[in-house]
Amino acid sequence: MIKSIGVFDSGVGGLTVVKELIRQLPGEDIIYFGDTARVPYGTKSKETVIRFSIENILFLLKQEVKLICVACNTVSSVALPVIKQYFKVPIVGVITPGVREAVYATKNKRIGVIGTSSTVKSRTYENEIKQLDHKVSVMAKACPLFVPFVEEGWFSGKVVAQVAKTYLKPLRDAGVDTVILGCTHYPLLKAVIKEALGKDVILIDSAQQVAIEVKEILSAEGLLSKARRGRHRFYVSDNPEGFSALAKRFLGHDAREVSKVNNV
Amino acid sequence: MIKSIGVFDSGVGGLTVVKELIRQLPGEDIIYFGDTARVPYGTKSKETVIRFSIENILFLLKQEVKLICVACNTVSSVALPVIKQYFKVPIVGVITPGVREAVYATKNKRIGVIGTSSTVKSRTYENEIKQLDHKVSVMAKACPLFVPFVEEGWFSGKVVAQVAKTYLKPLRDAGVDTVILGCTHYPLLKAVIKEALGKDVILIDSAQQVAIEVKEILSAEGLLSKARRGRHRFYVSDNPEGFSALAKRFLGHDAREVSKVNNV
Repeated sequence: MIKSIGVFDSGVGGLTVVKELIRQLPGEDIIYFGDTARVPYGTKSKETVIRFSIENILFLLKQEVKLICVACNTVSSVALPVIKQYFKVPIVGVITPGVREAVYATKNKRIGVIGTSSTVKSRTYENEIKQLDHKVSVMAKACPLFVPFVEEGWFSGKVVAQVAKTYLKPLRDAGVDTVILGCTHYPLLKAVIKEALGKDVILIDSAQQVAIEVKEILSAEGLLSKARRGRHRFYVSDNPEGFSALAKRFLGHDAREVSKVNNV
Repeated sequence: MIKSIGVFDSGVGGLTVVKELIRQLPGEDIIYFGDTARVPYGTKSKETVIRFSIENILFLLKQEVKLICVACNTVSSVALPVIKQYFKVPIVGVITPGVREAVYATKNKRIGVIGTSSTVKSRTYENEIKQLDHKVSVMAKACPLFVPFVEEGWFSGKVVAQVAKTYLKPLRDAGVDTVILGCTHYPLLKAVIKEALGKDVILIDSAQQVAIEVKEILSAEGLLSKARRGRHRFYVSDNPEGFSALAKRFLGHDAREVSKVNNV
């Protein structure tokens, strides 16, 4: 029996990771779950994010997945250490891959991190960066309006630019040369973020590194698919039409098989 | 046994209604439930909003409430007709009271309505206004970024003013003289909304009318409390600390008894 890669996120943002998984692992079947009935997670407590994550993982395990990719920075920041202890299936988050790339990329040893309130409050990025290189200084900033902007389809314009400028001023003042986009929605605002930070600043979008790590694990465990093209199925807890409409922006092509499930 | 008034909302916004209930009915005990684990409702499907509302009502019924006030425009718009059929307890929504006041207030028979995407999509306001006076023309506009602004504590400033101007231009162009604030968060943006619409436009905040309707029903059924001061208890499904911090802005004073429940 061919097993799939399971991916979950609070909503549609995790599709930026799916896009990269499809590019690097075209033969793999992918099952995606987006918890659109309870989105967003970024403003909710650690305890609740852990509870929701466990429910999402149990749903994916029922679909017989061989690996689970947490395509959500909030879950990866606040819940991953706990959920990794509970389950046998390999679970890959989005923090460590991004941290590795950022520490490798910075020249002046000053890294900026932007994400949801929960992600920033958890200090997970700071801790992981310091563990890899304690000489790096980190400036983290929550940008709570970026997710609503993306969901509203506002990727540019005066208002978005003004908000980006306000949010990112402390990072600019701190002179960071590398910034981690610590939320799967943020790659869609890359242009406006780059504009606000200055064009020499390197933006790290962890999706690429996440796919590399998934590939390494599957390869090490002898679990890589031998198929040429995989099947991609998408489940959401609410509003499959809304998900499909947004999916194209994140995925670069249509999400064909989208179903609603009442598991949460 | 003294029974309470039950109030629920997707989060903290419904406290604008609680504030008015306390002012008009100081002797009543109030039990509030804010579904902060699943907030917001305004971007979710009708089916899901109905499911969540039923769970919230069942929670309040366990607390032995004598009347339930749906202090959420999204729920009132999309779920009220269904949930009213299911339950014996009187259920009061926020649409009809606001509609009555707006139809009474308008001179040029042009009313604007602003709310979440779900509220506007439901066309409930249009239908109720037309039913009361079919000569009134209605211009409804969804303002999805207003809730994130309020939750982020941005009540004024260049960005908020610019977004308000963009959202409200169709209402201004339509020459409405009365605008219903069709979301419990919006009263906190009153100043900026007034600025964008022009100072002669009347803003309708339904909380006051809702409290009048609650009082009428309780009085008609002989259920009014005879106490001089009621007790006010607040339950949330996530993050009681965050709720308490925001509550003061909506309520005008501290919410003392706040507890977290795992009912959803």
